[in-house]
Amino acid sequence: MVETNHNDWQVIRFNGHKPSSMNDEIATEFPLTVVLNDEEFATMVCSPTDMEELVIGFLASEGVIRFYDEIKTIHLDDTKGFVYIELHKNIDSFQQYSKRFIGSCCGKSRQFYFKNDVQTAKTIYSKLSVSAEVCYALMNELQQASDQFIRTGGVHNAALATPEKTLVLRTDIGRHNALDKLYGCIIQERIPMKDKLIVFSGRVSSEVLLKISKIGSGILLSKSAPTDLALQLADDLGITVIGFARKGKMNVYTHPHRVAGADPLMNKQ
Amino acid sequence: MVETNHNDWQVIRFNGHKPSSMNDEIATEFPLTVVLNDEEFATMVCSPTDMEELVIGFLASEGVIRFYDEIKTIHLDDTKGFVYIELHKNIDSFQQYSKRFIGSCCGKSRQFYFKNDVQTAKTIYSKLSVSAEVCYALMNELQQASDQFIRTGGVHNAALATPEKTLVLRTDIGRHNALDKLYGCIIQERIPMKDKLIVFSGRVSSEVLLKISKIGSGILLSKSAPTDLALQLADDLGITVIGFARKGKMNVYTHPHRVAGADPLMNKQ
Repeated sequence: MVETNHNDWQVIRFNGHKPSSMNDEIATEFPLTVVLNDEEFATMVCSPTDMEELVIGFLASEGVIRFYDEIKTIHLDDTKGFVYIELHKNIDSFQQYSKRFIGSCCGKSRQFYFKNDVQTAKTIYSKLSVSAEVCYALMNELQQASDQFIRTGGVHNAALATPEKTLVLRTDIGRHNALDKLYGCIIQERIPMKDKLIVFSGRVSSEVLLKISKIGSGILLSKSAPTDLALQLADDLGITVIGFARKGKMNVYTHPHRVAGADPLMNKQ
Repeated sequence: MVETNHNDWQVIRFNGHKPSSMNDEIATEFPLTVVLNDEEFATMVCSPTDMEELVIGFLASEGVIRFYDEIKTIHLDDTKGFVYIELHKNIDSFQQYSKRFIGSCCGKSRQFYFKNDVQTAKTIYSKLSVSAEVCYALMNELQQASDQFIRTGGVHNAALATPEKTLVLRTDIGRHNALDKLYGCIIQERIPMKDKLIVFSGRVSSEVLLKISKIGSGILLSKSAPTDLALQLADDLGITVIGFARKGKMNVYTHPHRVAGADPLMNKQ
Protein backbone atom coordinates (compact mmCIF):
# COMPACT_ATOMS: atom_id res chain seq x y z
CA MET A 1 0.00 0.00 0.00
CA VAL A 2 1.19 3.46 -0.82
CA GLU A 3 0.88 5.68 2.20
CA THR A 4 2.96 8.75 1.55
CA ASN A 5 2.98 11.61 -0.86
CA HIS A 6 6.67 11.28 -1.47
CA ASN A 7 9.55 8.84 -1.82
CA ASP A 8 13.23 9.13 -1.08
CA TRP A 9 15.54 9.07 -4.06
CA GLN A 10 19.32 9.32 -4.16
CA VAL A 11 20.33 12.38 -6.13
CA ILE A 12 23.60 14.01 -7.17
CA ARG A 13 23.22 17.70 -6.44
CA PHE A 14 25.44 20.17 -8.27
CA ASN A 15 26.02 23.45 -6.49
CA GLY A 16 27.74 25.38 -9.26
CA HIS A 17 30.19 22.80 -10.59
CA LYS A 18 30.60 20.85 -7.36
CA PRO A 19 28.62 17.59 -7.12
CA SER A 20 27.58 15.92 -3.87
CA SER A 21 25.35 12.97 -3.04
CA MET A 22 22.18 13.27 -0.98
CA ASN A 23 18.70 11.85 -0.53
CA ASP A 24 15.87 13.93 -1.90
CA GLU A 25 12.12 13.69 -1.41
CA ILE A 26 10.32 13.05 -4.68
CA ALA A 27 6.58 13.52 -5.21
CA THR A 28 4.79 10.19 -5.65
CA GLU A 29 2.81 9.54 -8.83
CA PHE A 30 0.36 6.67 -8.28
CA PRO A 31 -1.71 5.04 -11.06
CA LEU A 32 -5.37 4.58 -10.08
CA THR A 33 -7.85 2.73 -12.29
CA VAL A 34 -11.54 3.58 -11.96
CA VAL A 35 -13.93 0.66 -12.51
CA LEU A 36 -17.46 1.99 -12.93
CA ASN A 37 -20.40 -0.44 -12.86
CA ASP A 38 -17.95 -3.31 -13.49
CA GLU A 39 -16.43 -1.64 -16.52
CA GLU A 40 -13.03 0.05 -16.73
CA PHE A 41 -13.64 3.76 -17.05
CA ALA A 42 -10.26 5.49 -16.83
CA THR A 43 -6.82 5.33 -15.31
CA MET A 44 -5.37 8.46 -13.79
CA VAL A 45 -2.08 9.14 -12.10
CA CYS A 46 -2.37 10.94 -8.80
CA SER A 47 -0.85 11.55 -5.40
CA PRO A 48 -2.04 8.61 -3.28
CA THR A 49 -4.12 10.54 -0.73
CA ASP A 50 -7.86 11.19 -0.58
CA MET A 51 -8.36 8.85 -3.51
CA GLU A 52 -12.07 8.25 -2.89
CA GLU A 53 -12.67 11.99 -2.97
CA LEU A 54 -10.56 12.18 -6.10
CA VAL A 55 -12.74 9.65 -7.89
CA ILE A 56 -16.01 11.24 -6.70
CA GLY A 57 -14.79 14.66 -7.84
CA PHE A 58 -13.52 13.25 -11.12
CA LEU A 59 -16.88 11.61 -11.89
CA ALA A 60 -18.67 14.86 -11.03
CA SER A 61 -16.25 16.85 -13.21
CA GLU A 62 -16.89 14.48 -16.10
CA GLY A 63 -20.63 14.91 -15.66
CA VAL A 64 -21.19 11.24 -14.72
CA ILE A 65 -22.72 12.16 -11.36
CA ARG A 66 -24.13 15.34 -9.85
CA PHE A 67 -24.77 14.24 -6.27
CA TYR A 68 -23.19 11.86 -3.80
CA ASP A 69 -26.46 9.92 -3.52
CA GLU A 70 -26.03 8.62 -7.05
CA ILE A 71 -23.21 6.41 -5.79
CA LYS A 72 -24.37 3.05 -4.42
CA THR A 73 -20.98 1.71 -3.29
CA ILE A 74 -17.37 2.80 -3.55
CA HIS A 75 -14.48 0.50 -2.71
CA LEU A 76 -10.82 1.45 -2.88
CA ASP A 77 -8.10 -1.19 -3.28
CA ASP A 78 -5.01 0.92 -2.72
CA THR A 79 -2.67 -2.06 -2.92
CA LYS A 80 -3.50 -2.75 -6.55
CA GLY A 81 -4.50 0.81 -7.40
CA PHE A 82 -8.12 0.13 -8.28
CA VAL A 83 -11.32 1.82 -7.17
CA TYR A 84 -14.66 0.11 -7.78
CA ILE A 85 -17.79 2.21 -8.02
CA GLU A 86 -21.39 1.10 -8.39
CA LEU A 87 -23.92 3.72 -9.39
CA HIS A 88 -27.66 3.44 -8.87
CA LYS A 89 -28.09 4.18 -12.58
CA ASN A 90 -26.76 2.39 -15.64
CA ILE A 91 -24.22 4.03 -17.88
CA ASP A 92 -25.29 3.35 -21.46
CA SER A 93 -22.11 4.35 -23.16
CA PHE A 94 -18.79 5.57 -21.83
CA GLN A 95 -18.03 7.08 -25.22
CA GLN A 96 -19.85 10.33 -24.55
CA TYR A 97 -17.68 11.16 -21.57
CA SER A 98 -14.47 11.52 -23.52
CA LYS A 99 -15.80 13.29 -26.58
CA ARG A 100 -15.15 16.98 -26.85
CA PHE A 101 -16.74 19.53 -29.05
CA ILE A 102 -16.46 23.12 -30.05
CA GLY A 103 -19.55 25.20 -30.60
CA SER A 104 -19.83 27.92 -33.18
CA CYS A 105 -18.91 31.51 -32.43
CA CYS A 106 -21.60 33.43 -30.60
CA GLY A 107 -21.40 36.70 -28.80
CA LYS A 108 -18.14 38.36 -28.06
CA SER A 109 -16.05 35.35 -27.22
CA ARG A 110 -15.36 32.09 -28.98
CA GLN A 111 -17.42 29.53 -27.10
CA PHE A 112 -15.69 26.37 -26.14
CA TYR A 113 -16.98 23.73 -23.83
CA PHE A 114 -16.65 20.05 -23.39
CA LYS A 115 -19.85 18.24 -24.20
CA ASN A 116 -20.68 17.44 -20.61
CA ASP A 117 -19.79 20.93 -19.52
CA VAL A 118 -22.85 22.27 -21.28
CA GLN A 119 -24.95 20.21 -18.88
CA THR A 120 -22.98 20.91 -15.73
CA ALA A 121 -21.35 24.34 -16.03
CA LYS A 122 -23.50 26.94 -14.36
CA THR A 123 -23.58 30.70 -14.10
CA ILE A 124 -22.65 31.83 -10.61
CA TYR A 125 -24.63 34.49 -8.75
CA SER A 126 -22.72 34.38 -5.46
CA LYS A 127 -22.89 37.59 -3.42
CA LEU A 128 -19.69 36.76 -1.54
CA SER A 129 -17.05 39.47 -1.54
CA VAL A 130 -13.45 39.71 -0.32
CA SER A 131 -10.77 42.32 0.31
CA ALA A 132 -7.17 42.17 -0.88
CA GLU A 133 -6.19 41.58 2.73
CA VAL A 134 -8.36 38.46 2.92
CA CYS A 135 -6.88 37.16 -0.34
CA TYR A 136 -3.29 37.59 0.85
CA ALA A 137 -4.09 35.89 4.16
CA LEU A 138 -5.78 32.90 2.48
CA MET A 139 -2.94 32.50 -0.01
CA ASN A 140 -0.46 32.54 2.86
CA GLU A 141 -2.46 29.83 4.62
CA LEU A 142 -2.40 27.72 1.45
CA GLN A 143 1.37 28.04 1.25
CA GLN A 144 1.99 27.35 4.89
CA ALA A 145 -0.45 24.47 5.28
CA SER A 146 1.26 22.60 2.47
CA ASP A 147 4.95 22.15 3.02
CA GLN A 148 4.93 19.39 0.39
CA PHE A 149 5.62 21.78 -2.45
CA ILE A 150 8.59 23.25 -0.69
CA ARG A 151 10.06 19.80 -0.08
CA THR A 152 9.33 18.08 -3.39
CA GLY A 153 8.56 21.00 -5.69
CA GLY A 154 6.01 18.73 -7.26
CA VAL A 155 2.48 19.23 -5.96
CA HIS A 156 -0.46 21.56 -6.38
CA ASN A 157 -2.86 22.72 -3.68
CA ALA A 158 -6.55 23.51 -3.77
CA ALA A 159 -8.44 24.79 -0.75
CA LEU A 160 -12.01 25.61 0.19
CA ALA A 161 -12.25 28.74 2.31
CA THR A 162 -14.52 31.38 3.74
CA PRO A 163 -13.14 34.92 3.92
CA GLU A 164 -12.36 34.11 7.56
CA LYS A 165 -10.40 30.87 7.20
CA THR A 166 -9.34 27.84 5.20
CA LEU A 167 -11.73 24.90 5.72
CA VAL A 168 -10.39 22.07 3.54
CA LEU A 169 -7.02 21.66 1.81
CA ARG A 170 -6.23 19.02 -0.81
CA THR A 171 -2.94 18.38 -2.62
CA ASP A 172 -1.91 16.38 -5.67
CA ILE A 173 0.84 16.22 -8.27
CA GLY A 174 -1.86 17.17 -10.79
CA ARG A 175 -3.64 20.54 -10.75
CA HIS A 176 -6.86 18.91 -11.90
CA ASN A 177 -6.58 16.14 -9.33
CA ALA A 178 -6.15 18.59 -6.47
CA LEU A 179 -9.36 20.33 -7.56
CA ASP A 180 -11.18 17.02 -8.10
CA LYS A 181 -10.25 15.90 -4.57
CA LEU A 182 -11.67 19.15 -3.21
CA TYR A 183 -14.78 18.80 -5.38
CA GLY A 184 -15.22 15.21 -4.15
CA CYS A 185 -15.05 16.38 -0.54
CA ILE A 186 -17.58 19.17 -1.19
CA ILE A 187 -20.01 16.70 -2.78
CA GLN A 188 -19.50 14.06 -0.12
CA GLU A 189 -19.96 16.50 2.76
CA ARG A 190 -22.73 18.41 0.93
CA ILE A 191 -21.01 21.74 1.63
CA PRO A 192 -22.98 24.78 0.41
CA MET A 193 -20.80 27.04 -1.75
CA LYS A 194 -22.67 30.37 -1.50
CA ASP A 195 -20.31 31.87 1.07
CA LYS A 196 -17.13 30.01 0.02
CA LEU A 197 -14.28 30.55 -2.40
CA ILE A 198 -11.58 28.33 -3.92
CA VAL A 199 -7.88 29.05 -3.33
CA PHE A 200 -5.58 27.40 -5.84
CA SER A 201 -1.84 27.16 -6.51
CA GLY A 202 -2.04 26.29 -10.21
CA ARG A 203 -2.44 28.03 -13.51
CA VAL A 204 -6.04 28.89 -14.47
CA SER A 205 -6.79 27.17 -17.78
CA SER A 206 -10.25 26.76 -19.34
CA GLU A 207 -10.54 23.30 -17.81
CA VAL A 208 -9.75 24.59 -14.34
CA LEU A 209 -12.28 27.38 -14.77
CA LEU A 210 -14.99 24.94 -15.84
CA LYS A 211 -14.33 22.87 -12.73
CA ILE A 212 -14.73 25.97 -10.58
CA SER A 213 -18.06 26.66 -12.28
CA LYS A 214 -19.24 23.10 -11.60
CA ILE A 215 -18.14 23.32 -7.98
CA GLY A 216 -20.17 26.52 -7.84
CA SER A 217 -17.61 28.96 -6.48
CA GLY A 218 -18.08 32.65 -7.27
CA ILE A 219 -14.42 33.49 -6.63
CA LEU A 220 -11.25 31.73 -7.75
CA LEU A 221 -8.09 32.98 -6.07
CA SER A 222 -4.91 31.66 -7.71
CA LYS A 223 -1.19 32.11 -7.21
CA SER A 224 -0.62 31.69 -10.95
CA ALA A 225 -1.62 33.13 -14.32
CA PRO A 226 -4.90 32.65 -16.18
CA THR A 227 -5.30 32.00 -19.92
CA ASP A 228 -7.51 34.11 -22.15
CA LEU A 229 -10.01 31.31 -22.73
CA ALA A 230 -10.36 30.81 -18.98
CA LEU A 231 -11.06 34.54 -18.57
CA GLN A 232 -13.68 34.52 -21.35
CA LEU A 233 -15.43 31.60 -19.68
CA ALA A 234 -15.18 33.31 -16.27
CA ASP A 235 -16.68 36.41 -17.82
CA ASP A 236 -19.57 34.37 -19.29
CA LEU A 237 -20.17 32.26 -16.19
CA GLY A 238 -20.03 35.05 -13.61
CA ILE A 239 -16.86 33.97 -11.82
CA THR A 240 -14.38 36.42 -10.28
CA VAL A 241 -10.83 35.39 -11.21
CA ILE A 242 -8.00 36.73 -9.05
CA GLY A 243 -4.52 35.69 -10.23
CA PHE A 244 -0.84 36.16 -9.45
CA ALA A 245 -1.66 36.50 -5.75
CA ARG A 246 1.84 36.52 -4.29
CA LYS A 247 4.19 38.79 -2.38
CA GLY A 248 1.48 41.28 -1.43
CA LYS A 249 0.23 41.75 -5.00
CA MET A 250 -2.65 40.33 -6.98
CA ASN A 251 -4.62 40.87 -10.21
CA VAL A 252 -8.40 40.90 -10.56
CA TYR A 253 -9.37 39.84 -14.10
CA THR A 254 -13.14 39.35 -14.15
CA HIS A 255 -16.27 40.37 -12.21
CA PRO A 256 -14.47 42.81 -9.92
CA HIS A 257 -17.64 43.62 -7.93
CA ARG A 258 -16.68 40.80 -5.54
CA VAL A 259 -13.36 42.46 -4.62
CA ALA A 260 -13.43 45.54 -2.39
CA GLY A 261 -12.08 48.57 -4.25
CA ALA A 262 -11.72 46.89 -7.65
CA ASP A 263 -15.11 47.49 -9.24
CA PRO A 264 -14.95 51.28 -9.84
CA LEU A 265 -11.73 50.87 -11.81
CA MET A 266 -12.91 48.27 -14.34
CA ASN A 267 -14.34 49.49 -17.66
CA LYS A 268 -17.90 48.34 -18.12
CA GLN A 269 -18.49 46.34 -21.29
CA MET B 1 -7.20 34.01 -37.48
CA VAL B 2 -5.33 33.88 -34.23
CA GLU B 3 -1.80 35.07 -34.74
CA THR B 4 -0.38 35.80 -31.34
CA ASN B 5 0.46 33.90 -28.23
CA HIS B 6 -1.25 36.43 -26.01
CA ASN B 7 -4.16 38.83 -25.72
CA ASP B 8 -4.58 42.08 -23.87
CA TRP B 9 -6.99 42.07 -20.95
CA GLN B 10 -7.95 44.86 -18.61
CA VAL B 11 -6.98 43.96 -15.09
CA ILE B 12 -7.24 45.58 -11.67
CA ARG B 13 -3.86 45.15 -10.04
CA PHE B 14 -3.61 45.36 -6.26
CA ASN B 15 -0.24 46.38 -4.90
CA GLY B 16 -0.79 45.71 -1.22
CA HIS B 17 -4.25 47.18 -0.69
CA LYS B 18 -4.06 49.80 -3.44
CA PRO B 19 -5.88 48.93 -6.68
CA SER B 20 -5.04 50.38 -10.09
CA SER B 21 -6.24 49.63 -13.61
CA MET B 22 -3.90 48.40 -16.35
CA ASN B 23 -3.76 46.22 -19.43
CA ASP B 24 -2.10 42.87 -18.98
CA GLU B 25 -0.91 40.30 -21.52
CA ILE B 26 -2.74 37.00 -21.12
CA ALA B 27 -1.59 33.71 -22.64
CA THR B 28 -3.89 32.59 -25.45
CA GLU B 29 -5.61 29.21 -25.21
CA PHE B 30 -6.81 28.10 -28.65
CA PRO B 31 -9.04 25.04 -29.26
CA LEU B 32 -7.78 22.90 -32.16
CA THR B 33 -9.75 19.92 -33.45
CA VAL B 34 -7.85 17.13 -35.20
CA VAL B 35 -9.73 15.40 -38.03
CA LEU B 36 -7.92 12.20 -38.98
CA ASN B 37 -8.92 10.35 -42.16
CA ASP B 38 -12.20 12.31 -42.20
CA GLU B 39 -13.07 11.36 -38.64
CA GLU B 40 -12.84 13.59 -35.56
CA PHE B 41 -9.97 12.33 -33.44
CA ALA B 42 -9.47 14.83 -30.62
CA THR B 43 -9.74 18.45 -29.61
CA MET B 44 -6.88 20.00 -27.73
CA VAL B 45 -6.36 23.48 -26.39
CA CYS B 46 -3.01 25.00 -27.28
CA SER B 47 -1.06 28.16 -27.91
CA PRO B 48 -1.80 29.01 -31.56
CA THR B 49 1.72 28.66 -32.96
CA ASP B 50 3.40 25.75 -34.78
CA MET B 51 0.07 23.93 -34.86
CA GLU B 52 1.03 21.53 -37.66
CA GLU B 53 4.05 20.44 -35.66
CA LEU B 54 1.83 20.11 -32.61
CA VAL B 55 -0.51 17.73 -34.41
CA ILE B 56 2.32 15.68 -35.93
CA GLY B 57 3.99 15.39 -32.53
CA PHE B 58 0.68 14.58 -30.86
CA LEU B 59 -0.05 11.77 -33.33
CA ALA B 60 3.46 10.40 -32.80
CA SER B 61 3.07 10.63 -29.01
CA GLU B 62 -0.20 8.74 -29.24
CA GLY B 63 1.45 6.04 -31.33
CA VAL B 64 -0.70 6.75 -34.40
CA ILE B 65 2.35 7.47 -36.57
CA ARG B 66 6.07 6.82 -36.25
CA PHE B 67 7.42 8.67 -39.28
CA TYR B 68 6.51 11.80 -41.20
CA ASP B 69 6.12 9.76 -44.40
CA GLU B 70 2.99 8.12 -43.00
CA ILE B 71 1.17 11.42 -43.45
CA LYS B 72 -0.32 11.90 -46.93
CA THR B 73 -1.69 15.43 -46.47
CA ILE B 74 -2.04 17.89 -43.62
CA HIS B 75 -4.17 21.00 -43.86
CA LEU B 76 -4.58 23.58 -41.12
CA ASP B 77 -7.65 25.86 -40.99
CA ASP B 78 -6.59 28.25 -38.27
CA THR B 79 -9.68 30.41 -38.68
CA LYS B 80 -12.02 27.67 -37.53
CA GLY B 81 -9.44 25.80 -35.45
CA PHE B 82 -9.43 22.57 -37.44
CA VAL B 83 -6.55 20.51 -38.80
CA TYR B 84 -7.28 17.83 -41.41
CA ILE B 85 -4.88 14.91 -41.75
CA GLU B 86 -4.93 12.09 -44.26
CA LEU B 87 -2.73 9.11 -43.51
CA HIS B 88 -1.57 6.55 -46.08
CA LYS B 89 -2.96 3.82 -43.81
CA ASN B 90 -6.47 3.26 -42.48
CA ILE B 91 -7.20 3.61 -38.79
CA ASP B 92 -9.44 0.69 -37.84
CA SER B 93 -10.51 1.94 -34.47
CA PHE B 94 -9.77 5.12 -32.62
CA GLN B 95 -10.73 3.41 -29.38
CA GLN B 96 -7.31 1.90 -28.80
CA TYR B 97 -5.63 5.28 -28.71
CA SER B 98 -7.35 6.51 -25.62
CA LYS B 99 -7.37 3.30 -23.60
CA ARG B 100 -4.86 3.07 -20.80
CA PHE B 101 -3.68 0.08 -18.91
CA ILE B 102 -1.50 -0.88 -16.01
CA GLY B 103 0.68 -3.94 -16.17
CA SER B 104 1.43 -6.16 -13.23
CA CYS B 105 4.36 -5.53 -10.94
CA CYS B 106 7.65 -6.80 -12.30
CA GLY B 107 11.15 -6.05 -11.16
CA LYS B 108 11.89 -3.33 -8.69
CA SER B 109 9.42 -0.74 -9.83
CA ARG B 110 5.72 -0.78 -10.50
CA GLN B 111 5.43 -0.81 -14.26
CA PHE B 112 3.02 1.65 -15.73
CA TYR B 113 2.66 2.51 -19.36
CA PHE B 114 -0.03 3.61 -21.67
CA LYS B 115 -0.98 0.90 -24.12
CA ASN B 116 0.64 2.57 -27.09
CA ASP B 117 3.71 3.40 -25.06
CA VAL B 118 4.63 -0.25 -24.95
CA GLN B 119 5.04 -0.09 -28.71
CA THR B 120 6.77 3.26 -28.94
CA ALA B 121 8.77 3.81 -25.74
CA LYS B 122 12.33 2.72 -26.29
CA THR B 123 15.42 2.23 -24.16
CA ILE B 124 17.99 4.91 -24.90
CA TYR B 125 21.66 4.09 -25.41
CA SER B 126 22.88 7.61 -26.22
CA LYS B 127 26.57 8.20 -25.46
CA LEU B 128 26.06 11.96 -25.22
CA SER B 129 27.40 13.58 -22.07
CA VAL B 130 27.24 17.07 -20.57
CA SER B 131 28.84 19.13 -17.82
CA ALA B 132 27.02 21.20 -15.21
CA GLU B 133 28.32 24.28 -17.01
CA VAL B 134 26.63 23.20 -20.26
CA CYS B 135 23.35 22.56 -18.42
CA TYR B 136 23.31 25.99 -16.78
CA ALA B 137 24.10 27.66 -20.11
CA LEU B 138 21.33 25.80 -21.98
CA MET B 139 18.80 26.54 -19.24
CA ASN B 140 19.75 30.23 -19.41
CA GLU B 141 19.20 30.17 -23.17
CA LEU B 142 15.76 28.60 -22.67
CA GLN B 143 14.81 31.35 -20.23
CA GLN B 144 16.15 34.18 -22.35
CA ALA B 145 14.82 32.98 -25.69
CA SER B 146 11.31 32.89 -24.32
CA ASP B 147 10.18 36.15 -22.83
CA GLN B 148 6.58 34.95 -23.06
CA PHE B 149 6.64 33.38 -19.62
CA ILE B 150 7.91 36.55 -18.03
CA ARG B 151 5.13 38.58 -19.66
CA THR B 152 2.16 36.25 -19.30
CA GLY B 153 3.35 33.80 -16.68
CA GLY B 154 1.46 31.18 -18.60
CA VAL B 155 3.60 29.18 -21.02
CA HIS B 156 6.03 26.29 -21.01
CA ASN B 157 9.13 25.91 -23.15
CA ALA B 158 10.76 22.86 -24.69
CA ALA B 159 14.01 23.06 -26.64
CA LEU B 160 16.18 20.74 -28.67
CA ALA B 161 19.88 21.35 -28.08
CA THR B 162 23.39 20.04 -28.52
CA PRO B 163 25.84 20.67 -25.66
CA GLU B 164 27.03 23.64 -27.74
CA LYS B 165 23.76 25.44 -28.44
CA THR B 166 19.98 25.52 -28.58
CA LEU B 167 18.68 24.45 -32.01
CA VAL B 168 14.87 24.60 -31.79
CA LEU B 169 12.60 26.21 -29.19
CA ARG B 170 8.85 25.65 -28.90
CA THR B 171 6.38 27.17 -26.45
CA ASP B 172 2.83 26.41 -25.40
CA ILE B 173 0.43 26.98 -22.52
CA GLY B 174 0.55 23.17 -22.06
CA ARG B 175 3.68 21.31 -21.01
CA HIS B 176 2.69 18.37 -23.19
CA ASN B 177 1.92 20.59 -26.15
CA ALA B 178 5.32 22.30 -25.99
CA LEU B 179 6.96 18.87 -26.13
CA ASP B 180 4.62 17.66 -28.89
CA LYS B 181 5.49 20.70 -31.02
CA LEU B 182 9.17 19.95 -30.56
CA TYR B 183 8.57 16.27 -31.34
CA GLY B 184 6.62 17.22 -34.47
CA CYS B 185 9.50 19.40 -35.65
CA ILE B 186 12.03 16.60 -35.01
CA ILE B 187 9.91 14.13 -37.00
CA GLN B 188 9.22 16.57 -39.81
CA GLU B 189 12.88 17.60 -40.18
CA ARG B 190 14.11 14.03 -39.55
CA ILE B 191 16.59 15.28 -36.94
CA PRO B 192 18.82 12.52 -35.51
CA MET B 193 18.74 12.51 -31.69
CA LYS B 194 21.99 10.69 -30.84
CA ASP B 195 23.92 13.87 -30.02
CA LYS B 196 20.99 15.97 -28.78
CA LEU B 197 19.21 16.60 -25.50
CA ILE B 198 15.87 18.12 -24.49
CA VAL B 199 15.67 21.23 -22.30
CA PHE B 200 12.32 21.73 -20.61
CA SER B 201 10.68 24.24 -18.29
CA GLY B 202 8.00 21.97 -16.88
CA ARG B 203 7.58 19.35 -14.22
CA VAL B 204 8.75 15.86 -15.18
CA SER B 205 5.77 13.51 -14.83
CA SER B 206 5.56 9.96 -16.17
CA GLU B 207 3.82 11.21 -19.29
CA VAL B 208 6.56 13.74 -19.98
CA LEU B 209 9.20 11.08 -19.46
CA LEU B 210 7.49 8.72 -21.90
CA LYS B 211 7.44 11.46 -24.52
CA ILE B 212 11.18 11.98 -24.03
CA SER B 213 11.72 8.26 -24.54
CA LYS B 214 9.69 8.31 -27.76
CA ILE B 215 11.58 11.34 -29.00
CA GLY B 216 14.72 9.35 -28.26
CA SER B 217 16.64 11.79 -26.08
CA GLY B 218 19.19 10.36 -23.64
CA ILE B 219 19.14 13.44 -21.44
CA LEU B 220 16.23 15.49 -20.10
CA LEU B 221 17.23 18.77 -18.49
CA SER B 222 14.37 20.43 -16.59
CA LYS B 223 13.93 23.54 -14.50
CA SER B 224 11.34 21.75 -12.36
CA ALA B 225 10.85 18.70 -10.17
CA PRO B 226 10.36 15.09 -11.28
CA THR B 227 7.85 12.59 -9.83
CA ASP B 228 8.89 9.17 -8.56
CA LEU B 229 7.10 7.33 -11.37
CA ALA B 230 8.93 9.44 -13.94
CA LEU B 231 12.24 8.56 -12.28
CA GLN B 232 11.42 4.85 -12.22
CA LEU B 233 10.61 4.98 -15.92
CA ALA B 234 13.78 7.00 -16.63
CA ASP B 235 15.76 4.39 -14.71
CA ASP B 236 14.17 1.58 -16.77
CA LEU B 237 14.47 3.34 -20.12
CA GLY B 238 18.04 4.59 -19.77
CA ILE B 239 17.29 8.31 -19.62
CA THR B 240 19.34 10.79 -17.58
CA VAL B 241 16.99 13.12 -15.70
CA ILE B 242 18.44 16.42 -14.47
CA GLY B 243 15.97 18.56 -12.51
CA PHE B 244 15.71 21.80 -10.58
CA ALA B 245 18.29 23.39 -12.89
CA ARG B 246 18.13 26.99 -11.72
CA LYS B 247 20.30 29.62 -10.06
CA GLY B 248 23.55 27.72 -10.58
CA LYS B 249 22.26 24.49 -9.01
CA MET B 250 20.86 21.27 -10.41
CA ASN B 251 20.02 17.68 -9.38
CA VAL B 252 20.94 14.52 -11.31
CA TYR B 253 18.39 11.79 -10.53
CA THR B 254 19.07 8.92 -12.94
CA HIS B 255 21.86 7.52 -15.15
CA PRO B 256 24.53 9.94 -13.90
CA HIS B 257 27.18 8.57 -16.30
CA ARG B 258 26.09 11.20 -18.82
CA VAL B 259 26.92 14.08 -16.44
CA ALA B 260 30.59 14.91 -15.83
CA GLY B 261 31.50 14.36 -12.17
CA ALA B 262 28.19 12.80 -11.11
CA ASP B 263 28.73 9.10 -11.80
CA PRO B 264 31.28 8.26 -9.05
CA LEU B 265 28.91 9.62 -6.39
CA MET B 266 25.81 7.55 -7.25
CA ASN B 267 25.29 4.23 -5.46
CA LYS B 268 25.17 1.35 -7.92
CA GLN B 269 22.01 -0.74 -7.67
